[in-house]
Amino acid sequence: MAPQLDGFFKQVDDLSSHFIKRLSQAVAIPSISSDAARRPDVVRMAHFLEKELTSLGAEVELRALGKQPDQPTLDLPPVVLARYGRDASKRTILVYGHYDVQPAEKSDGWNTEPFTLVVDEQDRMLGRGSTDDKGPVLGWLNAIEAHQKAGVDFPVNLLMCFEGMEEYGSEGLDDLIRAEAKKFFADTDAVCISDNYWLGTEKPCLTYGLRGCNYYSVEIAGPGQDLHSGVFGGTAQEPMTDLVRVLGTLVDTDGKIQIPGIAEQVAPVTTGEESLYDGIAFTMDTLHEALGSKTTIFEDKKSTLMARWRYPSLSVHGIEGAFSAPGAKTVIPAKVIGKFSIRTVPDMEIDKTNEFVYKYVKEQFAKLGSKNTLKVYAQHTGNWWVASPKHWNFEAAAKAVERVWGVAPDFTREGGSIPVTLTFEQATGKNVLLLPMGSATDGAHSINEKLDKKNYIEGIKLLGAYLHYVAVEPQL
Amino acid sequence: MAPQLDGFFKQVDDLSSHFIKRLSQAVAIPSISSDAARRPDVVRMAHFLEKELTSLGAEVELRALGKQPDQPTLDLPPVVLARYGRDASKRTILVYGHYDVQPAEKSDGWNTEPFTLVVDEQDRMLGRGSTDDKGPVLGWLNAIEAHQKAGVDFPVNLLMCFEGMEEYGSEGLDDLIRAEAKKFFADTDAVCISDNYWLGTEKPCLTYGLRGCNYYSVEIAGPGQDLHSGVFGGTAQEPMTDLVRVLGTLVDTDGKIQIPGIAEQVAPVTTGEESLYDGIAFTMDTLHEALGSKTTIFEDKKSTLMARWRYPSLSVHGIEGAFSAPGAKTVIPAKVIGKFSIRTVPDMEIDKTNEFVYKYVKEQFAKLGSKNTLKVYAQHTGNWWVASPKHWNFEAAAKAVERVWGVAPDFTREGGSIPVTLTFEQATGKNVLLLPMGSATDGAHSINEKLDKKNYIEGIKLLGAYLHYVAVEPQL
Repeated sequence: MAPQLDGFFKQVDDLSSHFIKRLSQAVAIPSISSDAARRPDVVRMAHFLEKELTSLGAEVELRALGKQPDQPTLDLPPVVLARYGRDASKRTILVYGHYDVQPAEKSDGWNTEPFTLVVDEQDRMLGRGSTDDKGPVLGWLNAIEAHQKAGVDFPVNLLMCFEGMEEYGSEGLDDLIRAEAKKFFADTDAVCISDNYWLGTEKPCLTYGLRGCNYYSVEIAGPGQDLHSGVFGGTAQEPMTDLVRVLGTLVDTDGKIQIPGIAEQVAPVTTGEESLYDGIAFTMDTLHEALGSKTTIFEDKKSTLMARWRYPSLSVHGIEGAFSAPGAKTVIPAKVIGKFSIRTVPDMEIDKTNEFVYKYVKEQFAKLGSKNTLKVYAQHTGNWWVASPKHWNFEAAAKAVERVWGVAPDFTREGGSIPVTLTFEQATGKNVLLLPMGSATDGAHSINEKLDKKNYIEGIKLLGAYLHYVAVEPQL
Repeated sequence: MAPQLDGFFKQVDDLSSHFIKRLSQAVAIPSISSDAARRPDVVRMAHFLEKELTSLGAEVELRALGKQPDQPTLDLPPVVLARYGRDASKRTILVYGHYDVQPAEKSDGWNTEPFTLVVDEQDRMLGRGSTDDKGPVLGWLNAIEAHQKAGVDFPVNLLMCFEGMEEYGSEGLDDLIRAEAKKFFADTDAVCISDNYWLGTEKPCLTYGLRGCNYYSVEIAGPGQDLHSGVFGGTAQEPMTDLVRVLGTLVDTDGKIQIPGIAEQVAPVTTGEESLYDGIAFTMDTLHEALGSKTTIFEDKKSTLMARWRYPSLSVHGIEGAFSAPGAKTVIPAKVIGKFSIRTVPDMEIDKTNEFVYKYVKEQFAKLGSKNTLKVYAQHTGNWWVASPKHWNFEAAAKAVERVWGVAPDFTREGGSIPVTLTFEQATGKNVLLLPMGSATDGAHSINEKLDKKNYIEGIKLLGAYLHYVAVEPQL
């Protein structure tokens, strides 16, 4: 029997102004985790959530995480842990979100003040954090409130874990999750994370896979200090010359990784998988729009989705230590550090991949016959994640999507990584579902970040509906 | 008959504390031309020179240069034009120097406060601007004062041109020099610039050649904005991938420029030239010390000096628009601008060189088959300069060096450019001599910049002695 949701849905509609106001209040707090000077605002945001949750009747704890490793005098913002409901006859669902945001300045090119939520004539709600991830976080709170005001019994026990360092590496979170796996999170039956996006703008999706990310540094050094190219040009072997030559051997223009041993680790495409891609709501036009150009590697949807989801990619991000400002400076940098990363997929192994990368980079450098010195190392590594989309957690979410949006969701993977997904899966041993609220054009880390009003309001309904379906979904 | 200089020399020695104090006062003014916030200090430095020159009886004008092109609300610092002596029977010598300095912060790694002149136990005078170029500028003033106090007739009419924007592209100076060529500078018989360094630390030199510098940007763009490598990695052609591949084709580890047409323009080595290098006071040890490593291209002095002075070199300086900070950021930069420069030598032509560079870079990019777009252009160009070291201006300076230092100077060229040299030569039509005061280890643009006390005091004698010899040197 389908859950009775009409009362709840109506209440969400009736409270929509109130919910938008709550998001305005949250967006107005510039909780930028990467900026030490904004740390008080990040903490203020935690207290805002604490106050809202408490007023809704949730039990709330702010968990201190100690000092920030790279700034030992700076306290990490607390993790907001909350529980709503303690009914042993109900399932317990753990949800995760983050209340910190990316930096934003009007002068970056925003059309509006980034920390003032503005609803424009197209019902886009513009503001830093609107879609990433304050909208989804408040979605859970709003769902609770709408149940209360509609007089509808809340279908599950809800555990909430909202962190304030997601945009700066989730410092301290993994340890907390592992430590609480058998304590605060002990009752968890399934996990739901709302912190990603639809593949396009029209059709909801459920996400069951993520690529991993190994991030590498290639450090080449020679002279004792930066040199003037007038004085030393032509007489010294320049680290920057060596570095661009090494970086130039990693990948070609069409994304083909040149490092032996990478492609060999990739799981073969199965015949069942082949047929999956055609049905996905995704067009090259959407990609071109998101890209802001037509400079794609592939011209067709299937190759593009496979390249994003199930094949590794290598991107060169930049160079530390070289001249990077506008203008002209005639420096010979003494030490330069090239940065690149590889997005990893099943069945790649982190250690094997590292070995292949180190070996190849060293070989390429050796070919140059340079007197400079080379170091190559992984800055960080993170595994890929794939869940079973046939799990009852996903089945429930799919029914909720169909109920709210009137369409069966696409089952998608993502090219990026959300490392906490894997941590939750490993620590709790439970299925993790990614249930996005926003759409592909929200511009999470960009200027003019937005969440469409429709995605927010229907998204609140979706989160609530998901809890109803997951409460009753048979465990196969 | 050799000039009578003993009285002047003794007076310089007697006034040495006074001259060091004058340098202390100058160093204490942080006249950093690249920092708009320090502009009042740059102007203060101009007024300091005006006051000192006026008290010595010179006629002084501060010439306004209008606004700074890249900061239209900011006044350029004035050029200090001064004349000492109006005796039609004497030669008129035009000297140039600059009173602005490079930035410096103690936290950059200085052992002492950069804007406090400190004389250490090895008689090194540490401080920003000590050697570049406040020491040499004050050298001219000190020479005037020592003549006055010794009661020795000043041998020439001295025209002085001291600018305050040398470390930021000498904005506005070329126009002033050309405008004044037939006015303020009209009487000039020869030009002397003291703004470079000995090749080593033991033997003075006279410098008769400079390399030019063409500075290029290679701009590769694709996406409409920076992208997340998780989302777009593997599906978009990345400008950074293309750029490192193009930059990697420009030059090899041993400095060999790969662009056809560059080496072909270089003037052949003459047999007379071959023999010049052996006598030069320069050792690979000095180079290794200055370099802070042994990562040189050549193992012998002659090849090294030729590479610095008479062959072109190509240095890759950096990339604008890519990730350049410490740490890890998984960005796909939308537009990246590689910066490189070519040091040019006789008989390279600017326009031809530009053509060869543009053609080659476009060819290399075309090979990639990329959908991204390429622009390649010169940010600035500046010609090489070579004067005749047999000119009476150089002959006089050589005699002065031998008189003061007891050794015949090396005749050297430099790998860097001092663009004003060429401007003075072209505008006045007169011979230009580079007569350095400091030595190779002074660290002009580095931390712990210094001028040895001996180089300062003997340098004041040298500037004065040069004026005596150049006053009487027969014009061949």
